[in-house]
Amino acid sequence: MQIKKSAERAKTTLVTRLRQVRAPRAATATVTAVKGGVTAAQGYSAAGVKAGIKASKKPDLAVVASDRPASAAGTFTRNAIRASSVTRCDNLLPVGGIRAILCNSGCANACTGKQGAKDTEATAALVAKALAVPPKSVLTASTGVIGKFLPMDKIAAAMPNLIKALSPTGGSAFSGAIMTTDLTQKESAVKVACGKQSFTIGGTVKGSGMIHPNMATMLCFITTDAAVTPAVLNGILKRVIDKTFNNLTVDGDTSTNDMVLIMANGASGVEVKSGVTVDKGLQNAFEEGLFAVCNDLCKQIAADGEGATKRVEINVTGARNDTEAKAAAKAVATSNLTKCALFGNDPNWGRIACAVGYSGAKFSDTKMSIKLCGIEVFRNLQPVKFDEKKAHTLMKKKVVAIDIDLGVGSKEATAHTCDFSYDYVKINAEYRT
Amino acid sequence: MQIKKSAERAKTTLVTRLRQVRAPRAATATVTAVKGGVTAAQGYSAAGVKAGIKASKKPDLAVVASDRPASAAGTFTRNAIRASSVTRCDNLLPVGGIRAILCNSGCANACTGKQGAKDTEATAALVAKALAVPPKSVLTASTGVIGKFLPMDKIAAAMPNLIKALSPTGGSAFSGAIMTTDLTQKESAVKVACGKQSFTIGGTVKGSGMIHPNMATMLCFITTDAAVTPAVLNGILKRVIDKTFNNLTVDGDTSTNDMVLIMANGASGVEVKSGVTVDKGLQNAFEEGLFAVCNDLCKQIAADGEGATKRVEINVTGARNDTEAKAAAKAVATSNLTKCALFGNDPNWGRIACAVGYSGAKFSDTKMSIKLCGIEVFRNLQPVKFDEKKAHTLMKKKVVAIDIDLGVGSKEATAHTCDFSYDYVKINAEYRT
Repeated sequence: MQIKKSAERAKTTLVTRLRQVRAPRAATATVTAVKGGVTAAQGYSAAGVKAGIKASKKPDLAVVASDRPASAAGTFTRNAIRASSVTRCDNLLPVGGIRAILCNSGCANACTGKQGAKDTEATAALVAKALAVPPKSVLTASTGVIGKFLPMDKIAAAMPNLIKALSPTGGSAFSGAIMTTDLTQKESAVKVACGKQSFTIGGTVKGSGMIHPNMATMLCFITTDAAVTPAVLNGILKRVIDKTFNNLTVDGDTSTNDMVLIMANGASGVEVKSGVTVDKGLQNAFEEGLFAVCNDLCKQIAADGEGATKRVEINVTGARNDTEAKAAAKAVATSNLTKCALFGNDPNWGRIACAVGYSGAKFSDTKMSIKLCGIEVFRNLQPVKFDEKKAHTLMKKKVVAIDIDLGVGSKEATAHTCDFSYDYVKINAEYRT
Repeated sequence: MQIKKSAERAKTTLVTRLRQVRAPRAATATVTAVKGGVTAAQGYSAAGVKAGIKASKKPDLAVVASDRPASAAGTFTRNAIRASSVTRCDNLLPVGGIRAILCNSGCANACTGKQGAKDTEATAALVAKALAVPPKSVLTASTGVIGKFLPMDKIAAAMPNLIKALSPTGGSAFSGAIMTTDLTQKESAVKVACGKQSFTIGGTVKGSGMIHPNMATMLCFITTDAAVTPAVLNGILKRVIDKTFNNLTVDGDTSTNDMVLIMANGASGVEVKSGVTVDKGLQNAFEEGLFAVCNDLCKQIAADGEGATKRVEINVTGARNDTEAKAAAKAVATSNLTKCALFGNDPNWGRIACAVGYSGAKFSDTKMSIKLCGIEVFRNLQPVKFDEKKAHTLMKKKVVAIDIDLGVGSKEATAHTCDFSYDYVKINAEYRT
């Protein structure tokens, strides 16, 4: 859990809100970090086991199940080449009645044609049979090498053990079994209180290369015990993803397999419904909670990006519109040259300015400014004298902030990334060997 | 010179033409590779000296002059933050009466505001005075670190030596003095014969990082002894650049300083004019010659990309239109994951397919295919069984080809790039230290 606790966190949240003006605010809602991931909310059980899909023999098959039918929604990669699991989930969602999500690591089952699609259906059917639920109530996700077929015999053989291991404390096992080149497990959960009502939202995510989500091999699974209709869940999820995962990049490559899936089973008894029974306060509270979980998971992916030695946050302010704010932030986050300089702790701000320049965002010749670790380095399209040694030292921290004010408006965006090291190249030159 | 000579080259050229259908063909023109760079054509002299701009004390100031007024045209970076040399040239060109181009390396004079603009004017004036020509007949270009001011005293002090060193055989000295992280000098020249008339086109270019030209710190200087009016020269240059340098990437970062400048002084007596005196055959011959020089220089930049161990050519065929052919080729060329796999000699074609998928180009589910080093690895959105060991061995060559047939049309494009190695990160983490 990287969200700060209690009083300290409340302050951070407020500062974040004032700066980012992106988390929708429900007047009466309080969002508090709690432990756990996909089983933090009531009514969920999860498990992760070794099925032998990965050559490393690490855990590679995971399932999370709801004890009652849940509303579900998802966001999916915009890559035109999509894994069959992405296509299947996208066809099914948003919908009610979902009972489980199965995820395998070690094989993306992408670029595998008709056989791949059959294997995805067969995997869902295996889970459905074991849980005695309909196949269409089971969602599946895959991550790993592209162009390899799923080892169906291994998955079938591991299924009884997987289902047997399901437990209300199995979130961590789930989180471990979906990792590929990730070095750390990534979980986040919050308790949202709104008046006298309260519910929980928890999730887990895996990185850590081919990360440039434009929904990336980023998979995220979120569960909540609030009751939300599929349509409302879908709308809120899309708004939150657009402000979080879609502003994240490790290497600029948008994967064939990315998706974020969310289940809402209502086990808390709190109804964030739609239509006539809609409670705007509760909906806002839910969106704020979901933003907190997704934003935290985003930062965890960035910090554990392939080869990363530090996490980098690019905050753009003063843009004419949301699109340009995002374009400028993402251009800097995606710039290989900027990220190599960050690895070298070199305050070479010219590369940051260069990326803003090619982002397409409008900026002011007289008001644009760039701060690196809080030190102003560029203003008025001219260099600013600054203490390079101090900047170099500050850049060695685990989290580096780049603040860019475009000086032409009031819109803002934050992009998440990491630095670019020898190890990124090593990991990806040797990925399959 | 990497263009092949005589009979062998004639065959290569023809094959290239049939495959790429992009070099415009003049029925009667023959294009033959010759030695040299910016002084290969008649009427030009050049020089390169050490002015002390670079900390390394290597040559860093270069000039090429025409013995008579020349037509000139240029293409410039589309980065919204532009070096003052780019702005000045763009304001002046296309125009006649140009006498010289000065280029310094070691300092980009970008993001330097009004002082930077003054320094650019002052540099042009220094050359103009030394050559006794008007300041507006002198173009300037800069490359190196962004955000530093030009050391005007050093440039002024070196000017007499630079002008004294001007020589019709000075092309190589010019080429050496414009290098930054380049490991090799890059020159190319051709003799174009059209009927009884013949002229020469020669040029030089520097790479080798921040290369993603969208006209990058790519600078290219071309001279010809054909007579071409500024407007015609401008039109031909833009068409050729769009098929060559604009399809080149090393790291996806579009520089603040990129430009290609061309001078045409008519010293050959051959008039590729415009308007009523236009000779379409000669114009086509000129465009074909210019394409050959630019295409060759492109390959030389890719081969010497920062940290590169090999050059990579991505040929896309079967596209619906030129835009999508180019988008698919450039997406693969820019994919960090694909380039790391190329460095590791790993036939991990899934990353190539993934990049095509997010390029936005339309492809056929049943006809799309990918070949790696001539071996088909993907067809019909399904894996093809192939000899991975053979592919791995072929990938160790100095030039690797990736052929992608989108299967939905007849349009084609070629993108040029290199692999992505530890050394790229090293060079750019330590660039200023």
